[in-house]
Amino acid sequence: MPTRPPVVVFDVNETLSDTGPLADRFTGIGAPAHLAQLWFTTLLRDGFALTAAGASRPFADVGADALRTLLHGVELRCALDEAVEHVLSGFGRLPLHPDVAEGVRALRAGGHRLLTLTNGSARVSEQLLTAAGIREEFEALLSVEDAGAWKPARAAYEHAVRACGAPPGEVLLVAVHPWDVDGAARAGLRTAWIDRAGSPYPACSTAPQLRAVDLVDLAAQLT
Amino acid sequence: MPTRPPVVVFDVNETLSDTGPLADRFTGIGAPAHLAQLWFTTLLRDGFALTAAGASRPFADVGADALRTLLHGVELRCALDEAVEHVLSGFGRLPLHPDVAEGVRALRAGGHRLLTLTNGSARVSEQLLTAAGIREEFEALLSVEDAGAWKPARAAYEHAVRACGAPPGEVLLVAVHPWDVDGAARAGLRTAWIDRAGSPYPACSTAPQLRAVDLVDLAAQLT
Repeated sequence: MPTRPPVVVFDVNETLSDTGPLADRFTGIGAPAHLAQLWFTTLLRDGFALTAAGASRPFADVGADALRTLLHGVELRCALDEAVEHVLSGFGRLPLHPDVAEGVRALRAGGHRLLTLTNGSARVSEQLLTAAGIREEFEALLSVEDAGAWKPARAAYEHAVRACGAPPGEVLLVAVHPWDVDGAARAGLRTAWIDRAGSPYPACSTAPQLRAVDLVDLAAQLT
Repeated sequence: MPTRPPVVVFDVNETLSDTGPLADRFTGIGAPAHLAQLWFTTLLRDGFALTAAGASRPFADVGADALRTLLHGVELRCALDEAVEHVLSGFGRLPLHPDVAEGVRALRAGGHRLLTLTNGSARVSEQLLTAAGIREEFEALLSVEDAGAWKPARAAYEHAVRACGAPPGEVLLVAVHPWDVDGAARAGLRTAWIDRAGSPYPACSTAPQLRAVDLVDLAAQLT
C-alpha cells in the first residue's frame, strides 16, 4: 500500500502572497519603503506577544496599532487614518508568487487535499486566491480567528488538523516562516519550509522535514 | 496606614538602555543603519513565537539567528561570524537613557525596592547598570532564563513576583514596551508605561495604570 498523500496546509502571507508591493503602499503615503518589512515584523511580534500572554486579537487590529506607532513622527502625505487604511487594504490586493499557481495545481493533480491556515482573515485569503484564479483548488481557507490563538500556538494547528479530519502526522504545514514550521512541528504536524531567498534556517527553530525553493519544487518532491 | 510603596521591577532593553547606538554597530559592519530596529524587532518576534509555541531559547541565540537571516545577501565589511559578534557584543555596552540614574535614585530615596527583569541575560543587565554607577540601587537583576519562559508569558512575571516575595498587586512592572505592560497586567501586576517618544498606546494591549515620560517623571508620580 502506498502512503496516503498528506493533506497540505499552506500559510498565506509571504508563503503564497508576495508582500513586496506593500513597500509601494508606504512610499504612497510618504513613508520610507523599508518601513514595510519593519511593520510586518512588528505586527507579528505584537500578535505573538498577545498569544504568549494568552490573548488573541484580529490581525488587522494588531496591524493598525503597529502602523500607528511606526508612523508616529513620520511626515505623511495624507491623514493618519487614511494612511493606515491605504496600507491595510494593500494586503487583500497582493499578487501571489509566480510559482504558486503551477505548484498548487501540481499538488492537486498529485492527489493532495489543499487548505490554507492564516493568522489573518479568511476573507483576505479568499480575495488573493480568487484573483489568482486558483481558489477552487482549495477545499477550505482557515483562519486562526476560529482557533482562539494565533500560530505558532498549538491550538492554531489543532484547529487546522480538526478541519482536515486527518491525524496530525498526515498533515503537512507549508510555510516560508521558520516560526511557523517550528510551531507546526511542535504540534505534531509534518513540515515543509519554502525558501525562495536561500536564507539560512535558524538554529533555534525545529528543522523542517522538507525544504523546497518554491511550490513547484515542493510538488515535485511530493509526487 | 499609608500604602506600602510598590516593589518596582524594570524591564532593561530600551526601558533603561538606549539601543540607539546599535545602529552604529550595523553601519560598522557595512549594513544599513535601519536594520538595527528591524533586527531587534525580529529578535523579539522570534523569541515570542517560541514562547507562544511553549519553548524557550537564550536571547543571544535567538538574536544571532535573526541577524544571520537579516544579513543574508548584505555585502559586509567583515566575515559574517565577526559581524554577528560585533552587533551582539554591542548590547552589553549600551548607555542608559539620561533620565535613568536620577529616576532610579529618586525611587530608592522614596523607599521603593528595585529589581530588573529582562528577556536577555542578567550578565548584560549587570554590565549596563555597573557601567552607569547605579548597580547598587537594585536588590536583584533577574532574567527570564530562570523562569523557563520569556516575557510576556505569565510564568516570567510569576518568577519576578516570587523573587520579590510580595503579592503581584504590590509589584509594579515598568517598561517602554506595550507588550510588556500588557503581559504584566494579565499576570496581575501593577504597570507603568514609559513613553519617551510620545507614541500612541496600542488599542490591542491592556492599558497601563501609570504613564510617565521618563523615570524622573515616574518617581515624581510615585512619591
